[in-house]
Amino acid sequence: MTELKGRILAGKVLVQPQDAVEKTAGGIIIPDSAKEKPQTGTVVKVGSDKKDEPMEVKVGDTVFYGKYSGTELQIDNENYLLISQSDVLYIA
Amino acid sequence: MTELKGRILAGKVLVQPQDAVEKTAGGIIIPDSAKEKPQTGTVVKVGSDKKDEPMEVKVGDTVFYGKYSGTELQIDNENYLLISQSDVLYIA
Amino acid sequence: MTELKGRILAGKVLVQPQDAVEKTAGGIIIPDSAKEKPQTGTVVKVGSDKKDEPMEVKVGDTVFYGKYSGTELQIDNENYLLISQSDVLYIA
Amino acid sequence: MTELKGRILAGKVLVQPQDAVEKTAGGIIIPDSAKEKPQTGTVVKVGSDKKDEPMEVKVGDTVFYGKYSGTELQIDNENYLLISQSDVLYIA
Amino acid sequence: MTELKGRILAGKVLVQPQDAVEKTAGGIIIPDSAKEKPQTGTVVKVGSDKKDEPMEVKVGDTVFYGKYSGTELQIDNENYLLISQSDVLYIA
Amino acid sequence: MTELKGRILAGKVLVQPQDAVEKTAGGIIIPDSAKEKPQTGTVVKVGSDKKDEPMEVKVGDTVFYGKYSGTELQIDNENYLLISQSDVLYIA
Amino acid sequence: MTELKGRILAGKVLVQPQDAVEKTAGGIIIPDSAKEKPQTGTVVKVGSDKKDEPMEVKVGDTVFYGKYSGTELQIDNENYLLISQSDVLYIA
Repeated sequence: MTELKGRILAGKVLVQPQDAVEKTAGGIIIPDSAKEKPQTGTVVKVGSDKKDEPMEVKVGDTVFYGKYSGTELQIDNENYLLISQSDVLYIA
Repeated sequence: MTELKGRILAGKVLVQPQDAVEKTAGGIIIPDSAKEKPQTGTVVKVGSDKKDEPMEVKVGDTVFYGKYSGTELQIDNENYLLISQSDVLYIA
Repeated sequence: MTELKGRILAGKVLVQPQDAVEKTAGGIIIPDSAKEKPQTGTVVKVGSDKKDEPMEVKVGDTVFYGKYSGTELQIDNENYLLISQSDVLYIA
Repeated sequence: MTELKGRILAGKVLVQPQDAVEKTAGGIIIPDSAKEKPQTGTVVKVGSDKKDEPMEVKVGDTVFYGKYSGTELQIDNENYLLISQSDVLYIA
Repeated sequence: MTELKGRILAGKVLVQPQDAVEKTAGGIIIPDSAKEKPQTGTVVKVGSDKKDEPMEVKVGDTVFYGKYSGTELQIDNENYLLISQSDVLYIA
Repeated sequence: MTELKGRILAGKVLVQPQDAVEKTAGGIIIPDSAKEKPQTGTVVKVGSDKKDEPMEVKVGDTVFYGKYSGTELQIDNENYLLISQSDVLYIA
Repeated sequence: MTELKGRILAGKVLVQPQDAVEKTAGGIIIPDSAKEKPQTGTVVKVGSDKKDEPMEVKVGDTVFYGKYSGTELQIDNENYLLISQSDVLYIA
């Protein structure tokens, strides 16, 4: 994982998703009920505290988040997901 | 119940549901009106206080919550439910 | 009325409804326009103050509340209703 | 008008409506456009101040309020209307 | 214009509308595009300051307001309009 | 441009629009995609500061604003547009 | 890039988009799934801090933002995009 030089806004968390293997196998969608479970990813950047909402997540944390959370971002040819801290379900 | 090492965000409550027996019996849905009653579970983790909303629930509490509250999480092959404290109806 | 050992959250009121007699007579629904009137019940538990909303109701009060307010709870085989204090219309 | 012993919540106003005569004459609805005008009533109880909204109405005031404001309440066989102070249009 | 003895709530403005002449001429609606323009009226009563919104209008001001603003009130057989201060577009 | 004697409320901006020429040429609507661009106008009046939103625009500024912002006002036979400061896109 | 003399409101960011080449080639829309990715642009102006939301972006930053964010503005025959700071996904 290359270090990213950019920044994100207060209250935001940039995640590198741990993509399920079956997603990359030729683009075929596998009807697997397990896919409805929350996704996991590694935190690569965190924004600063927001008023009334301190940042509780730190770089390197593995986080669980809802499948439909956030916005996909491609930075230096890597895929990331920008979520709000409130999208974080569990910090492993 | 294994101890969980992770964390959850402020204002959140992680519950291990006391699943109804009939749910696990072969996946058949039993049309039992009693199922509309609130669910119960054991609190396994609590987040910190939120501004204007102190955490009033503690680990080990048995809580009642609405049937459709929260998000299911599978951690270390156990099923949990992440709810907001405001989803808690009663603390037994 | 047995004493309840549990707790409820700040701003909440647990009520033991004074069920209309016709409701329990064999489960027949009586088309009585009077049923649209607010319900009454006895307060059995109150939560603590919320910020900007002090608890104004106390255990033992008879309260009026809207027919569709709150969530039904069964605790120790008794029926209760959990309402928000703001659902209280009148404290007799 | 009998004195009421109960209480109402902060920011609320309990009104005894000055019902239009035509409403009570056999239950016939008179298509009178004047009926769209605000209703009037006598304040019989007021709640305490709410944060950022002091109570500006007092017992005995005649108030105007919108036709569809509030919730009807029957207390000791008399009809009342519970409105929020913000439903009050004019204090005569 | 008779003096009104009543009061209105904080943040409210009671206006005596300057009705367009064509409105009173036999009740015929004149399809005049000019009617879409804001209405004008004379302020006859103002409520006190609201938190974070001081009263900037005073009795006697001519105000412009949107055609669909406020609630009509009939007091002592005169027609008034109760608007919120935020409905005021211009103070002539 | 005649000086206007009136006032507007806090947070508001009164603008004299710089109407597109093609609008006045016989009332024919010209299907020009350029018309979707923001409108410009000259600020003729500004309201005072609102809480948490100081007035950043001053009389004489040329402002850009969205085509559908604000309410048209006719004062002394001149056309104006009353917008909220938050409708201002750019101050030239 | 000519220097712009104007101003924008607090919390706003004016961006000069780095338009995709295929957009300008004769106006033909190329069905390229890559187009769903966030857009990038160079910050040419920033507004001041808003209450509870300090400005974290500065002139010269390359920012990523959602494809449908903001309002297009044409100033001195150049195209710009006015976005809210909260539309910024990543600051490269």
